[in-house]
Amino acid sequence: MPKQVDHDQRKQTIAEATWRVILQQGMEGASVRNIAKEAGLSAGALRHDFSSQEELLRYAMNLVKEKAAARIKAILTLELPPKEKVLRTLLEIVPTREETRAEMEVWMAFTTYFRHKQTGFDAQHDGIYQLMQYLIAYLEQQGLLETGADQELEAERLYALIDGIALHALLDSQRLGAGKISRILEYHLNSMMDAAEN
Amino acid sequence: MPKQVDHDQRKQTIAEATWRVILQQGMEGASVRNIAKEAGLSAGALRHDFSSQEELLRYAMNLVKEKAAARIKAILTLELPPKEKVLRTLLEIVPTREETRAEMEVWMAFTTYFRHKQTGFDAQHDGIYQLMQYLIAYLEQQGLLETGADQELEAERLYALIDGIALHALLDSQRLGAGKISRILEYHLNSMMDAAEN
Repeated sequence: MPKQVDHDQRKQTIAEATWRVILQQGMEGASVRNIAKEAGLSAGALRHDFSSQEELLRYAMNLVKEKAAARIKAILTLELPPKEKVLRTLLEIVPTREETRAEMEVWMAFTTYFRHKQTGFDAQHDGIYQLMQYLIAYLEQQGLLETGADQELEAERLYALIDGIALHALLDSQRLGAGKISRILEYHLNSMMDAAEN
Repeated sequence: MPKQVDHDQRKQTIAEATWRVILQQGMEGASVRNIAKEAGLSAGALRHDFSSQEELLRYAMNLVKEKAAARIKAILTLELPPKEKVLRTLLEIVPTREETRAEMEVWMAFTTYFRHKQTGFDAQHDGIYQLMQYLIAYLEQQGLLETGADQELEAERLYALIDGIALHALLDSQRLGAGKISRILEYHLNSMMDAAEN
């Protein structure tokens, strides 16, 4: 068992080194050689855990997703007023602090990179769309969604809004800081909800 | 003068070849060699017009921007009901047909690529944010914006929505086709506007 733990721990260390390399140098710099150096390992050691650069990149990408999913799951189980719960969930996805900013940057780099690989990584199926559908259905169940709201279009709209904000926060963090992101999201939630509930 | 025309024409040909290479192979394939081949020119001829790969990529990127700007300008001068004018403008930006899809794909590739260059291309200043501010102010002037709407937040929200839709339409065109994009945008416009005006 310790051997498996060591193995998993080392893979995690390598994945984290991969994120740092991408953050510093972009996807162009994410060679096995650079990643091994950042992780303090030999390229040979790295090849022991990952048979190819692509396998390594996929592993590192999945770990980003799992980290975010674990945080969101924790929030969804909290006892909170529905609007606050939805807002806090959304704020775990968009980049409002160092951790989520790095995640989003790495995620964008991966997504663009894998778009032109034959083996097409399912970058679009990151679970965020399903989460948006869930949040809209949750607001509806709580009786908070405006009368006549179209749940399908609301989920699409929220999904696009979230990823658009994430993109802009990365490209222009001066204009779109954490405070403004919260205001936009709260404004949007209010606009979806019955006036009486705001 | 004909010489200058030839020169501009050839630069345009090269820029268009650059777009095609990026569409087919991604940014990784956008070498001077590949672009020259696609344009039917020698690498030497290409270097005559552009002193570096980066200069060429910047030129090709700017041309994407100019093409879209020209189309939008044409729509804004049309005599149309305000809501339709805004909707048609938005539909020129998001990928709903071959031309805008290719533009957006190339634009995303450029944006990601230039993020890690020291000479940082101003990818975030693509003029779309200013256009969104203009459209919101226009709806307000026409008396169509909902009472109490916050123009700054509405512009941010529309900007994020547009780029989010663009991103999703690229990554998952099956789910987000032209018809659905129109429905989301119209739904959003209706939600911003006074109920009496819908």
